[in-house]
Amino acid sequence: MQGLPRFSQYLGILSFIVAWFIYIYVKKQPNGTNTTQELEKMVHRGVISFLKREYFFLVLFLSAMFILLRLFLNEWDTSIAFLAGALCSIIGDFSGITAATRGSSRTAEAAKRSGEPKALNISYLSGSVMGLAISGMGLLGIGLLLRYHGGNPDTIGYIYGFALGACFIAIFSRLGGGIYNNAASFAANLVGRVETGIPEKDPRNPAVIAVGVGNNMSDIAGMAADLFDSFVGAVIATIAIAATLSITPEFYARFPLINDIEPTNIRLMYMAMPILVIMAGMLSLFIGIFSIRIFQHGNPARALGHTTLLANGLFIIIVTIIIYNTGMPWGSFWAILSGLLCGIAIGMLTGYYASGPGIPRIAAQSKIGPATVIISGLAAGMLSACLPILFICAATFIGYQTAGIYGIALTAVGMLATIGATMTVYACGPIADNAESMSDMSCLDLETRRITANLGAIGHTTTAIGKGFATGSAALTAFALFMAYTQVAGLEVINIKKPLVVVGLFVGSLVPIICSSLTITSTDKVASIILEEVRRQFREIPGLLEGKEGAKPDPRKCVSISATSALGKTFLPVLIAVLTPVIIGFLLGPESLGGMILGSTVMGLFLALFMINGGIVWDNVKNYIEKGHVGGKGSTNHKAAIVGDTVGVPFKDSSGPSMNIIMKLISVISLIIAPIIPAVGYII
Amino acid sequence: MQGLPRFSQYLGILSFIVAWFIYIYVKKQPNGTNTTQELEKMVHRGVISFLKREYFFLVLFLSAMFILLRLFLNEWDTSIAFLAGALCSIIGDFSGITAATRGSSRTAEAAKRSGEPKALNISYLSGSVMGLAISGMGLLGIGLLLRYHGGNPDTIGYIYGFALGACFIAIFSRLGGGIYNNAASFAANLVGRVETGIPEKDPRNPAVIAVGVGNNMSDIAGMAADLFDSFVGAVIATIAIAATLSITPEFYARFPLINDIEPTNIRLMYMAMPILVIMAGMLSLFIGIFSIRIFQHGNPARALGHTTLLANGLFIIIVTIIIYNTGMPWGSFWAILSGLLCGIAIGMLTGYYASGPGIPRIAAQSKIGPATVIISGLAAGMLSACLPILFICAATFIGYQTAGIYGIALTAVGMLATIGATMTVYACGPIADNAESMSDMSCLDLETRRITANLGAIGHTTTAIGKGFATGSAALTAFALFMAYTQVAGLEVINIKKPLVVVGLFVGSLVPIICSSLTITSTDKVASIILEEVRRQFREIPGLLEGKEGAKPDPRKCVSISATSALGKTFLPVLIAVLTPVIIGFLLGPESLGGMILGSTVMGLFLALFMINGGIVWDNVKNYIEKGHVGGKGSTNHKAAIVGDTVGVPFKDSSGPSMNIIMKLISVISLIIAPIIPAVGYII
Repeated sequence: MQGLPRFSQYLGILSFIVAWFIYIYVKKQPNGTNTTQELEKMVHRGVISFLKREYFFLVLFLSAMFILLRLFLNEWDTSIAFLAGALCSIIGDFSGITAATRGSSRTAEAAKRSGEPKALNISYLSGSVMGLAISGMGLLGIGLLLRYHGGNPDTIGYIYGFALGACFIAIFSRLGGGIYNNAASFAANLVGRVETGIPEKDPRNPAVIAVGVGNNMSDIAGMAADLFDSFVGAVIATIAIAATLSITPEFYARFPLINDIEPTNIRLMYMAMPILVIMAGMLSLFIGIFSIRIFQHGNPARALGHTTLLANGLFIIIVTIIIYNTGMPWGSFWAILSGLLCGIAIGMLTGYYASGPGIPRIAAQSKIGPATVIISGLAAGMLSACLPILFICAATFIGYQTAGIYGIALTAVGMLATIGATMTVYACGPIADNAESMSDMSCLDLETRRITANLGAIGHTTTAIGKGFATGSAALTAFALFMAYTQVAGLEVINIKKPLVVVGLFVGSLVPIICSSLTITSTDKVASIILEEVRRQFREIPGLLEGKEGAKPDPRKCVSISATSALGKTFLPVLIAVLTPVIIGFLLGPESLGGMILGSTVMGLFLALFMINGGIVWDNVKNYIEKGHVGGKGSTNHKAAIVGDTVGVPFKDSSGPSMNIIMKLISVISLIIAPIIPAVGYII
Repeated sequence: MQGLPRFSQYLGILSFIVAWFIYIYVKKQPNGTNTTQELEKMVHRGVISFLKREYFFLVLFLSAMFILLRLFLNEWDTSIAFLAGALCSIIGDFSGITAATRGSSRTAEAAKRSGEPKALNISYLSGSVMGLAISGMGLLGIGLLLRYHGGNPDTIGYIYGFALGACFIAIFSRLGGGIYNNAASFAANLVGRVETGIPEKDPRNPAVIAVGVGNNMSDIAGMAADLFDSFVGAVIATIAIAATLSITPEFYARFPLINDIEPTNIRLMYMAMPILVIMAGMLSLFIGIFSIRIFQHGNPARALGHTTLLANGLFIIIVTIIIYNTGMPWGSFWAILSGLLCGIAIGMLTGYYASGPGIPRIAAQSKIGPATVIISGLAAGMLSACLPILFICAATFIGYQTAGIYGIALTAVGMLATIGATMTVYACGPIADNAESMSDMSCLDLETRRITANLGAIGHTTTAIGKGFATGSAALTAFALFMAYTQVAGLEVINIKKPLVVVGLFVGSLVPIICSSLTITSTDKVASIILEEVRRQFREIPGLLEGKEGAKPDPRKCVSISATSALGKTFLPVLIAVLTPVIIGFLLGPESLGGMILGSTVMGLFLALFMINGGIVWDNVKNYIEKGHVGGKGSTNHKAAIVGDTVGVPFKDSSGPSMNIIMKLISVISLIIAPIIPAVGYII
């Protein structure tokens, strides 16, 4: 059993082969009328054109970081791992997003030809490519690194670079994609309804395609990069803790099962454990994916739930077998289980906030005016942060009680090991949502539109659940990385009675605050660039506004000129998040830096949940009113709800989710500089 | 010199005598036309009627707490000190608010008869009664307690009860008064402009008087109770630290000046120091107040600045003399100075946010719509929290570097010692603001209204500055109390590597979050009660709406029926803030409780600054547009700004400032239960 982790990269490759076959299968499906095909082609091209800009931007940034890391750390291994981490995230993301853009039109066509079960099947399978790709790249990347650099606990430090690489891709995808998406929605709305008077989703408006691109980039690619980052971060934190854990007699006493193994082997077993756990997640994913064929005939929401439940159930069974056979203490099992349950609970809570009794209550208050909608949404967002935070505290505490600080990291691994199955369901949401848009835009028959609308509504909820899960897992990962940091820095104690540690705590809390403040206002500039381009196209392309045959918009241009601006907006927040831990570490020392990590986690977690849930609440209040409640579309109440929704867009799509990555980024940077702080020395 | 603190209560009594003479002088001033007199009488009666309700509510609550404390701590002294603290706060508040309500009409009349200098003089002197009363009550209360219970370091614990009493009055005044004020403004606006079409400030509308009462309760009485609480909290934290400081050889080495004094005397000197410092503050206040006669002839804003500067300068000179004569180490001087400067800097920053270049920028964006105003205000609020937090970190750090953890507490004392002078200026703001309303309502001549408007505008800024100062001082006090807690609990180390301490940190951060969420939405209910009463009066009092001679509204009824509801809304937040530290302390132990205090300080400080500054920004954007910029009153831009301002009212007037007291309340409760946690034991 101990030799198994060696096979992780093969399992990673296998998952890619499975993903490839699924992709071929999805691509072979009929993709409908000329309009749908045309729309698909435009969205696909738009996505590629966004990614081109993003990769161009990233090549510059990653090269700079590569050189800086090399100079700073004075060795090549971390820099190489850094590039590997970035590359794995990019490959996973690219594969998944390609399948997702192919999936929407085929989902719509399947709904038309074969009805709901087939449509669900196609959207689920298109999503599963992303699930397989990101978990596969995680296994492959970490597996290859361990194979070629070796798993010697004393030199394992290079692997932190892998987590840093994943983190960088995540922040640019999540924040750049999010800002771009918000700007595109804003521009599409303004130029469409307000300026030209054409309907909401009209393919003549080039910004409408830009919105389709944005949905893919923000809700699928951004989410996937974020989860990939948490996934590898949790595994690497666990490896780092295992590599530095002091294996004392008390340790033996605590875990009597492995009393008869040699200390070195115990350590290696502990380091291998997280890899075994994610391999278990991968195996359960394979079965989970194919079970959709069995479940697809029932209620679609329930079908998605059942596949996830099956995958999670299988995962727990395999983990039980692993622990039984490796002789690991059973405490690890409870830590993994508590992580898994915590993830499910947080996801369900977000789903509850998105559709619970709060929505009609706030909708009813919309008659007082927009200010009341805003205040109620802010209050709901704040309150909604409490239970998830308590769940995370509980999971952490259970992890610690059952398996020490190693258990805390395992909790995060347990939450993220089934990421493949979870990501599949979340990717399925925006795919169905886009299928709904396409069937509306192509004016498909009413029954088809009913099916896609139904799937779209479910997609709406799974996207909300996904956002909650992503934040919960990011917090647990940041916390695991914090524990790894304390181990690597050799800190037995971080004493918050010391004013310098308190300063660290406060400064740490400022980083998420500054980053949110910068990112919630960054939509305007990008939106104005898109607006100008759309206006130019309507002006200069003859016959476009009148909808003449052959007059086509050029959404690619729209995308490419605004992508750079959106990505540029992420630069300052990233710089602040990277530099602050370096400054605090070398200025105030490792203990203050520990305080800083926790300060940023406390504030980042609150701001993430507050903004995401607040945004989701406003979005759903608007949707609820649009369904005809308390006045319906066009009423004063609706207008008040639109104000709430407009405030909520940057909350839930860019600033809120970006907090996830800010928390992890600060922890990873700290983990990387931890070994050199004592060598370089610190000032105060 | 060491015997001087014994005279603190006499200085307290002296300040009351001075305050009494000033009050008599103010009351003797002519108070204008029949309308002004009538308005003054109504506001004064409204205030008394609010206070009656508040005291009735408090008698019940304080008795319950008195008995609980007695049962819980098993001794009388703390309970008695608790009642004394509450009583001192009430007496100070009541004296100050009486003078303030008398001041407004007389300021307006002075403006009419003798011009600006005299008007400034009257508003300043009316405010000074509050300044003298609260600092006098602090000296008197602490002085008497120390005299009758003795200053034995081993039994000094009873004095924490005094801080708790002050804290309870502060939370009810601040939050209850704030919620009531918001509700009254909301109701006055709605019933006036929207429902009956009568002008904004029309004395026929009973809610208009209710707003006047609310301004007095929230901006003067609430602020005073908050500052009184910080004032006594800082002094008591310093005494607690001095009483438990271990006077080791290293300690001698650190402070060589007092090498030749006996350890017991050193300790007593350290315990006496904060009292000497606030006595210095009181002496400088006397001179500061009377200097208004010299400065009043220039620019009024500068005159207020000069009196404060003079008081602060004198204070520093007296502190220098004290330190020179007592042989205290000079480190204490730097700690006190850094606190004083930190307070000034935070106040100036808030003033800058309230009138800086951000206001026209956001006003210009109001043309895009209310959502943009909201987002910009939220972003500005977040960003504005950063510098004050860094200043507080810097002051704390300087305090620690110069005089150890004792220095941290002294920093808070330094910031708050000149509270008399500062409170005078802040109270002067709402008094001038009310004078402006009165001269508008009584239709005084244009020149008088220009003067009162000018003073009102300055008052607007000083109120903003006061809010920033109150939050900064609350944070420093909470931090001093945290240090006192660690000393009293005998915690050498609070290790945030321990998951239980992290749980404490997170749970601590949740308390301010829950309390803000609860309080920002609590205006609605109270507003609807006022609305109903106002509508009833317009319906049932014949001739009121038509403005017939003799038809008078009954604002007292308006006040009394809504006061109870507003005060009731404060109950749940207070309960949460009181119970959480008790639960964490006895469940997870003293170290977790230490983490909890810091968690609540980190989050409470952020939320306070974010909400207060955000609210102030929205308020000033609206005012800026009303002055005729970017479209002026009645434009779409103005409507968008009104949405922002409506969101901002609970932010800046109730929820934001209440965070100040939540932070302190958690620390004081922890300080009180610290000695009994080890005795009772804890569960995990």
